Amino acid sequence: MTDLQRSAEVLSVGTELLLGDILNTNAQFLAQELAQLGIPHYYQTVVGDNVLRIQKAVAIACERSRLLIFTGGLGPTPDDLTTETLADFFGVPLVERPEVLEDIAQKYARRGRQMTPSNRKQAFLPQDAMILPNPTGSAPGMIWQPRSGLTILTFPGVPSEMKEMWRQTAVPYLISQGWGQGMIHSRILRFWGIAESALAEKVSPYLNMENPTVAPYAGNGEVRLRVSAKAATEAEAEALIAPVEQELKAIAGTDYFGVDDDTLASVVGKQLKAKGHTLAVAESCTGGGLGHLITTVAGSSTYFRGGVISYDNLVKVSLLGVRSADLERYGAVSEVVACQMALGVRQRLGASWGISITGIAGPDGGTDEKPVGLVYIGIANPQGQVECFQYQFGSFRGRDFTRWLSACTALDLLRRKLL
Amino acid sequence: MTDLQRSAEVLSVGTELLLGDILNTNAQFLAQELAQLGIPHYYQTVVGDNVLRIQKAVAIACERSRLLIFTGGLGPTPDDLTTETLADFFGVPLVERPEVLEDIAQKYARRGRQMTPSNRKQAFLPQDAMILPNPTGSAPGMIWQPRSGLTILTFPGVPSEMKEMWRQTAVPYLISQGWGQGMIHSRILRFWGIAESALAEKVSPYLNMENPTVAPYAGNGEVRLRVSAKAATEAEAEALIAPVEQELKAIAGTDYFGVDDDTLASVVGKQLKAKGHTLAVAESCTGGGLGHLITTVAGSSTYFRGGVISYDNLVKVSLLGVRSADLERYGAVSEVVACQMALGVRQRLGASWGISITGIAGPDGGTDEKPVGLVYIGIANPQGQVECFQYQFGSFRGRDFTRWLSACTALDLLRRKLL
Repeated sequence: MTDLQRSAEVLSVGTELLLGDILNTNAQFLAQELAQLGIPHYYQTVVGDNVLRIQKAVAIACERSRLLIFTGGLGPTPDDLTTETLADFFGVPLVERPEVLEDIAQKYARRGRQMTPSNRKQAFLPQDAMILPNPTGSAPGMIWQPRSGLTILTFPGVPSEMKEMWRQTAVPYLISQGWGQGMIHSRILRFWGIAESALAEKVSPYLNMENPTVAPYAGNGEVRLRVSAKAATEAEAEALIAPVEQELKAIAGTDYFGVDDDTLASVVGKQLKAKGHTLAVAESCTGGGLGHLITTVAGSSTYFRGGVISYDNLVKVSLLGVRSADLERYGAVSEVVACQMALGVRQRLGASWGISITGIAGPDGGTDEKPVGLVYIGIANPQGQVECFQYQFGSFRGRDFTRWLSACTALDLLRRKLL
Repeated sequence: MTDLQRSAEVLSVGTELLLGDILNTNAQFLAQELAQLGIPHYYQTVVGDNVLRIQKAVAIACERSRLLIFTGGLGPTPDDLTTETLADFFGVPLVERPEVLEDIAQKYARRGRQMTPSNRKQAFLPQDAMILPNPTGSAPGMIWQPRSGLTILTFPGVPSEMKEMWRQTAVPYLISQGWGQGMIHSRILRFWGIAESALAEKVSPYLNMENPTVAPYAGNGEVRLRVSAKAATEAEAEALIAPVEQELKAIAGTDYFGVDDDTLASVVGKQLKAKGHTLAVAESCTGGGLGHLITTVAGSSTYFRGGVISYDNLVKVSLLGVRSADLERYGAVSEVVACQMALGVRQRLGASWGISITGIAGPDGGTDEKPVGLVYIGIANPQGQVECFQYQFGSFRGRDFTRWLSACTALDLLRRKLL
C-alpha cells in the first residue's frame, strides 16, 4: 500500500469537545500509536453529537483517508449517534447482536446494577461489522469495512476503555491486515540558549531531509529538534537517526543539553552526581521555583542540599550573610548582592556549588535604572569563586515566564560550568 | 446573523499534533471561549505542516464555517506555512509589514539577541490583512476577511502567546463585529478539600437548572462549579448567576475558597494582607514548590518573608533549629520534625505564621511504616503554637502530583486558619 492508500484519520465525536468541557487526549493517544505503527495520519476532525454534521464529516473523511478511527458517541443515551449514523451513511441495516446484549447484562449484574432499556441500543451494529470488544466498559466498538479499501474502527470516548480496546484488539487486527508495516520512530533533541530561528539556520540543510526528517519546535524558552525515521523496525529507525543526531549535536555544540525526556534539571543532576558535587540555592524573585525544578528529579536528594528563599531583605542578611550596607548601597537586585547570596548559601549549606537569583519579576517594582525583567544570577563554584550574570528578560512575557526563564537559565549556566 | 452564518471552526496546524507529540490544549481553550461568546462551533480540524493538505482543509472549512481560527504555523522556519498557504489559497499577495519587523527586532534586542534573516518571513502578511499583535512573542497573527462573509484569525501555536492575543485583540474585535451577540457568561466557583462526587451530591438540584446551568469539574485536586448564564448582556447574565452563586457558596461552606482567577495562593495572600500578618515556609519534599506558589502572586513580598528549603537533614538542623536527636529518633518525615520546622522558620524569619512540609514524594524512599505519599504539614501560628497534620496521598498519582497536593493542602490549611 502507498502512504495515501494507508492514511488514517481520527474523528472525535462529542459536543463536550466543542464546548471545551474536556480535552481531546484520545486524539493525542491515537496519534502517538499511529506514528509508532507507521500508519500515516494527516487529518483529525472533531464534530458534535449531530447526525447531519457527523455524516458530512464522514463523507469528507472517506474521500481523503482509508482508515477512519472514531471515538465517542457509543453510549446508551439519545445523543450517542456514531453507530447509527455510520450505518445510515453507508446504507447498511443495524442488526441486534445477542452476544453483546448478554455481555452488557452480565457486566451490570456483576456491579449489582440492572441494565436499563437504553443499553439495548448498544447491541445494534451494522450487519457485516465485527464486534470490537470492550473489556472494561459496556459499549463495544466495531471493526467495519463498509466498502472495499475503507476500514472503520469505533471506540467509546472514555479514554481508559478506548486505550484497552485499542491495545487488545485494534492493534493486532491492524497489523494482521498489513497496516503496521514500517514504523516511525522519533527522537527529541533539546537545546537551551539559542533561538529557534538561529538553530534552524545552523541546521538548515537537515530540515529538507526525507528519512529521517528533522523539524524544529520552540516553547517555554527551550528549542527542540525532532528527528523522525521511518523503517521496518525500531532498530532500523534508530540506525537512521543516530548519525544525523550526532551531526546535529556537533553543529549545536554546547547549546544542546539533552534528548527525549531529559530536562535541564535532570541533566544537571546527572552531572553533579558524576562529579560527586552538591548544590544549594538562594532565591529571591523565583521564590523557590529553582529548588522546585531541581527536586522534580527523583533522587535529587543525593546532590541537592536545599536552599534559602530570601524574599525579604532581612532574610538575605540573616540567613545568607549579605551585608546590609551593600543592600542599601546597590539594592537587592544587583551584582554585588547576587554574588553574596551565592557565596553565602554555598558556605552555610556546605555545598560544592551555590546558585543565586535576584531580579524584578514584575509587573510592578521596576524603575528606569532597574526595569522589570532585570535578573542577576550568581554562581559560586567549589573553589569558592563567584561569577555573576546579568539578564534582561523584558516585561512583555509576564511575571510567571520571567521567573521560569530565570530558574532555567540558572540551571543552564551551571550545566555549562559542569561540562 | 443566524447560527450557521456565525459558526466558527478551529483549525490547528502542526505535524507535532498528528504525531501526538503535543496535546491540543489550544482547541479546548478556543472552544471554551467561543462558547462563552455564544459563537456556534461545529467543527475542529487538525492538519499537518503541508501546503496541499492545509489548502484542502481551508477549502472544506470555508464551505461550512464563517469564522476560521487557525493556531500554529506562524513561526520563522520553513515548515511554518499557515500565512503563505492562506494567501496563496485566496490569491492575495503577501506584503512585508515594516512595523512587524521593527517589533520583532526590538523584542530580540531586549533579550540581547540578534534577529535572524528567517524572522523576516514573519513580517509578511496578505496585503489587506490586519495585524493581530503578539505582545508576548515574536510572530504576530492576522485578522483577515479574504472574501465577504468569511473571517480568518491566525495565532501562533504557543498557548501562552495565543491566549494573550485572543484576550487582548481577538475578543474585542469579534464583539465589535457583532459575533458576540447574546453571550454566555460564566463564573467559576472553586473548592478545595471536597471530592467532585461529594460536592455534586450536595448541590445536585442545581445540576439540572437551565439558565444558569451549573456543571462540576475536577482537576489537580481542585473541584470547580461552572455557573453559566445566557443573556443579552453581561450584566443580565450576572444577575442570573448571582443568587445561584450565593446559594452554592452557602451549601459548600468553608470548602469554597474563591471565584474565577482566584487561587489558594492569592486568597491566602489577601487574608494575610488584611490582617497585616506575614508568612515563612520550611520545605522538604516540595523543595521550594510552596514558596514558588506563594510568590506567583504579584505583590506577595508584602506578606511573604521567604523560607528555607531544608532538603538535607543538616539544613533542618543548622537553619531551622530542628534537634538532631529528634531527627535520629523520629525521622525527617514525622510530626515532631514538622512541628520544629514550622516553629523554627517562623522564629528565624520573624514571621507571624510558619508552615512546614516534610514527606515522602517517591517513587523511592518509602517503607512499610512510612509509605510513599506520607506527608506532614506543620503550622505555627502568631501566638507561637504549632499544629501538625498528617496526610496519606498514596503513591499512584506520582511524585509531581504528591508534591503539588502537599503545597496546595498547606495553603488550604492556612486559609482555613485565617477565615
